[in-house]
Amino acid sequence: MLTIGGIALIFVAMVVSTIMDGNSFGPLIGPSSMVMVLFGAIGAGITSFEISDLSAMPKTLIKAMTGKPANGDGIVNTMMKMAEIARREGVLALEEKLKDIEEPFLKEGLQLVVDGMDTENARSILEVQMESIDGRHQTQISLWKAIGGYCPALGMMGTLVGLINMLGNLSDPEQLGIGMSLALLTTLYGVLFSNALFIPIGNRLDTLNNAEMAVMTLIIDGVLAIQAGASPRMLVERLESYLNPSQRIGHQARAKGGTAEAA
Amino acid sequence: MLTIGGIALIFVAMVVSTIMDGNSFGPLIGPSSMVMVLFGAIGAGITSFEISDLSAMPKTLIKAMTGKPANGDGIVNTMMKMAEIARREGVLALEEKLKDIEEPFLKEGLQLVVDGMDTENARSILEVQMESIDGRHQTQISLWKAIGGYCPALGMMGTLVGLINMLGNLSDPEQLGIGMSLALLTTLYGVLFSNALFIPIGNRLDTLNNAEMAVMTLIIDGVLAIQAGASPRMLVERLESYLNPSQRIGHQARAKGGTAEAA
Amino acid sequence: MLTIGGIALIFVAMVVSTIMDGNSFGPLIGPSSMVMVLFGAIGAGITSFEISDLSAMPKTLIKAMTGKPANGDGIVNTMMKMAEIARREGVLALEEKLKDIEEPFLKEGLQLVVDGMDTENARSILEVQMESIDGRHQTQISLWKAIGGYCPALGMMGTLVGLINMLGNLSDPEQLGIGMSLALLTTLYGVLFSNALFIPIGNRLDTLNNAEMAVMTLIIDGVLAIQAGASPRMLVERLESYLNPSQRIGHQARAKGGTAEAA
Amino acid sequence: MLTIGGIALIFVAMVVSTIMDGNSFGPLIGPSSMVMVLFGAIGAGITSFEISDLSAMPKTLIKAMTGKPANGDGIVNTMMKMAEIARREGVLALEEKLKDIEEPFLKEGLQLVVDGMDTENARSILEVQMESIDGRHQTQISLWKAIGGYCPALGMMGTLVGLINMLGNLSDPEQLGIGMSLALLTTLYGVLFSNALFIPIGNRLDTLNNAEMAVMTLIIDGVLAIQAGASPRMLVERLESYLNPSQRIGHQARAKGGTAEAA
Amino acid sequence: MLTIGGIALIFVAMVVSTIMDGNSFGPLIGPSSMVMVLFGAIGAGITSFEISDLSAMPKTLIKAMTGKPANGDGIVNTMMKMAEIARREGVLALEEKLKDIEEPFLKEGLQLVVDGMDTENARSILEVQMESIDGRHQTQISLWKAIGGYCPALGMMGTLVGLINMLGNLSDPEQLGIGMSLALLTTLYGVLFSNALFIPIGNRLDTLNNAEMAVMTLIIDGVLAIQAGASPRMLVERLESYLNPSQRIGHQARAKGGTAEAA
Repeated sequence: MLTIGGIALIFVAMVVSTIMDGNSFGPLIGPSSMVMVLFGAIGAGITSFEISDLSAMPKTLIKAMTGKPANGDGIVNTMMKMAEIARREGVLALEEKLKDIEEPFLKEGLQLVVDGMDTENARSILEVQMESIDGRHQTQISLWKAIGGYCPALGMMGTLVGLINMLGNLSDPEQLGIGMSLALLTTLYGVLFSNALFIPIGNRLDTLNNAEMAVMTLIIDGVLAIQAGASPRMLVERLESYLNPSQRIGHQARAKGGTAEAA
Repeated sequence: MLTIGGIALIFVAMVVSTIMDGNSFGPLIGPSSMVMVLFGAIGAGITSFEISDLSAMPKTLIKAMTGKPANGDGIVNTMMKMAEIARREGVLALEEKLKDIEEPFLKEGLQLVVDGMDTENARSILEVQMESIDGRHQTQISLWKAIGGYCPALGMMGTLVGLINMLGNLSDPEQLGIGMSLALLTTLYGVLFSNALFIPIGNRLDTLNNAEMAVMTLIIDGVLAIQAGASPRMLVERLESYLNPSQRIGHQARAKGGTAEAA
Repeated sequence: MLTIGGIALIFVAMVVSTIMDGNSFGPLIGPSSMVMVLFGAIGAGITSFEISDLSAMPKTLIKAMTGKPANGDGIVNTMMKMAEIARREGVLALEEKLKDIEEPFLKEGLQLVVDGMDTENARSILEVQMESIDGRHQTQISLWKAIGGYCPALGMMGTLVGLINMLGNLSDPEQLGIGMSLALLTTLYGVLFSNALFIPIGNRLDTLNNAEMAVMTLIIDGVLAIQAGASPRMLVERLESYLNPSQRIGHQARAKGGTAEAA
Repeated sequence: MLTIGGIALIFVAMVVSTIMDGNSFGPLIGPSSMVMVLFGAIGAGITSFEISDLSAMPKTLIKAMTGKPANGDGIVNTMMKMAEIARREGVLALEEKLKDIEEPFLKEGLQLVVDGMDTENARSILEVQMESIDGRHQTQISLWKAIGGYCPALGMMGTLVGLINMLGNLSDPEQLGIGMSLALLTTLYGVLFSNALFIPIGNRLDTLNNAEMAVMTLIIDGVLAIQAGASPRMLVERLESYLNPSQRIGHQARAKGGTAEAA
Repeated sequence: MLTIGGIALIFVAMVVSTIMDGNSFGPLIGPSSMVMVLFGAIGAGITSFEISDLSAMPKTLIKAMTGKPANGDGIVNTMMKMAEIARREGVLALEEKLKDIEEPFLKEGLQLVVDGMDTENARSILEVQMESIDGRHQTQISLWKAIGGYCPALGMMGTLVGLINMLGNLSDPEQLGIGMSLALLTTLYGVLFSNALFIPIGNRLDTLNNAEMAVMTLIIDGVLAIQAGASPRMLVERLESYLNPSQRIGHQARAKGGTAEAA
């Protein structure tokens, strides 16, 4: 929601400032410029990337629009409970709790613990998976940013085509202005698509991925600690280090629980 | 195929938007601008790189046009079968299966296992080879990108040559427009060659290389696991971590096979 | 204070040079340009980052304005005293001194020592926390720099909107100048907001974070040395390596104390 | 030779396209622009680098023009022979063969083996030397690239000086064109020197250095394997991993020799 | 000295080319442009960095002007002598020689050896100190480069202020040229200060720091070898690897001494 709001705000700023300056919107509408920049950008994208990555763009766009960063605090809570169970009843007792866990990476990590996989292999499988997910996200991020990087050049190409035509036919000075106006429009569309769509979306996907990777690092650390039989109090102390103090919402409750457990 | 389609789409976008704006194509055809940008770029390429690397450009262009990323899922299948054979009949039994394997890096890795090379040396040989292949690809990638980086500067040089001539002879204003139109054409060609050919091809080679390196990492990991006598089920679980979930096409079949083997 | 002074100096330089050139300020005031650049930048920021990170911007702005780098020399003094106590009376004796320590990271580190946590875990918890703080700061730094990066493009968009309108209506040459003047104003605002506000603030946050991370590295090193029972003289020698010679204000006093302790 | 040909090709492209456009060369000759860009670049180079590094530029220019990448295949051949001798007659027997080896780094590495230096120290000395050579090459590479980076700015400065003078004296429109033509010439020279001389030479030195470092890595690996008493067949298999398949010219011959030795 | 000469050469190139083109210097003198660029750059510097770092700029400027890279060859000589003494008379005998050593880092390293500090701690203290010195130098380098990066933007701001004023008042075409001339002057000053002062000085500090760090690495390696009781011949062989062959001035003399010692 907020992401759409951000893009909308850029357009609102443009509309309001255009009205304030007494400019009109008619000359700003250019289907030909849109064709040049948008189809050109898609063409450059098809050339540069896999078609399977490009066809994932609508899905990542929706993710960028609606995605929320993982709830690190909730995961610390879940892991504390799992650590308590593992300590009291053994790691096999975790199996029936797994179906209540929503976060798939945590679920998979604990499944490995339940399966009795050794620490070395469990760490390696989880890390490879995390890197693999990171790699896929990085591809999408670089896709949006790369297309955002092609847009201004495509806009400039359109403007040059217009200028070259206009300059070859300088007889009517009135036409000169209109031709140049039309030519510059493609540059505007190139800068606009780049800075109000592709690059901000790429940056957002980057922001979301960073948050996701941070939570995955926390999960790997916690899962291996549970396997090693860490006390819930120790585990919480360790895992809270990963969280921003403002994110440690359940800190009070956990501290109490931890004390109870320690007693 | 798709790569050619991508480049074609950029040109289609340019043609359509030129027609929509009522511009003509005559002034956009400039053999002199083509000579300046294309031969200049080749010259800068010859200066910057080895002639052997440059002469490999047509081959890499074809690869960029037709290359498909390695089939990670098929390789996991093959490796599972190899692990089953190695477990049942010993690693020497792999020898006669090697001729059926298409992927040369996997073939070579398993050959080392059959030859009884120790883990340390096998890993080191495979990693050196992977780095060596990566290095060769990086040279080609940087070649395409570097030439793509020279093009706009060469276009600007051509434009400056035209402008300097035109400005020294301002008597005929009609000629002024035509001279400037011709001068700007070289800039257009520089931006066009850079953004619709060299840089997208460089990016595509990068995309293909990343996929190839990911599969090679998977192969090295799997080959060493087979040598260490890993169970097929374990091996599959490990190697599937490298794959995008959507790539794990044979997951169901393998899981069944794995269970059968475990039973 | 000095940070505000720095930004003020840029504006003073602009005002003075405008007066010296006999230019007037009237044409430089453009509410529409401000709307375009500032709201556009906020929109691009909302799209690219978490709303929670954006809402922390006023707080980080105040920090950038008033923040002072941590006092490394004072911390070395405190740690020397703590090392003396730990050596004479044992690490448990540090507990009652903790309440006098202001630096929270040092406090937390010594608390872990008092709690008897083993070196491995203590180092890991402190390092995770340091990385976590660094990560949060990096997000803020990249936020300010990213918005500073969007501003010139937004300014250029506003200028293009103005130019396109102006060129479509070339009948009145007097209006032409005024239209172009107004159009260029948005570019000025884009460059100004970028180079006199967002990017310098981002750089300052970077400077402050570097200093803070250096002190944290010193603290981790020192806390683990105290836990390992290092002599105060040794500790000081070690920790002073982290300080700029000009920062080693208490060196003389410490050296004397160190000698006394060694005797 | 080819490097000179590459630079020549850029100039040929410029000359041909200038003739094709019917432009003349007279206005393109500007001794003042040459003074500005070339001496300015030398000045910026003197300020930025050591005079000893600058005075090595003619030597590196000749190297860039004539240098050929090391013959990795020949070195593998030599090392195979050395490994055979070392195995048959002991490492001391290598001493009298050293004088036939041309590659100085290989000579030095084998000398260390003959001198009986332990693996640890031999590796460390060879690696320090390799890094030291790499460092010196990097300085030259960054020197050429840095000067190539200053050129366009110096060209722009010259153009601004010309424009500022021209604009202050607008009475004669004929002069205006000539003044602007002359002013733009410095920009042309700045772009030309940067993109047709300094940056391509810097890139070529980079290409040569990469090839040289790859061969040095191969040599270090091989020398230590000879010291460790590796079999010639093993050594060749290992070292060929470093070579591009197209570079493994002597592969057939070596494989035969290797088999002979293994028999 | 040479650094000043380099900056002077840039100005000489500009003066000579201005005279060659028959341009005059009057329009190039602009106190207002100087105020805009220089004070603006100082303001941006104050905002971005610590005041203590900024106030060290005159000192680093003098260092950039007069600094010479450390004499690696002389240090190898000194260390060889120290190794001989340490071998013959024990490390304690080094104490009285320390006062003759000029290089402070070498003095400090040998002092640690004399004090009997263990290798681990000595290495760690020396490395922390080296990193700490490197960090301080990097701050100064980034300070000069960052200010050099702000200058062109500040120049552009000044030019935009002038253009906006000029375009709002197009009645007198004669004034138009003079206004634009004055406006462009600030751009010239921005590019000039950036490319003829701040960035070259930043690059020079970088060059000096690289040389200093290389010598410090050599010193740490040598000091630890002396502590470990390395033979002078071995030490020299090791340390000479760090030096450029052209720097190994004392190689002949040392080789003779080394042989004498070995005998």
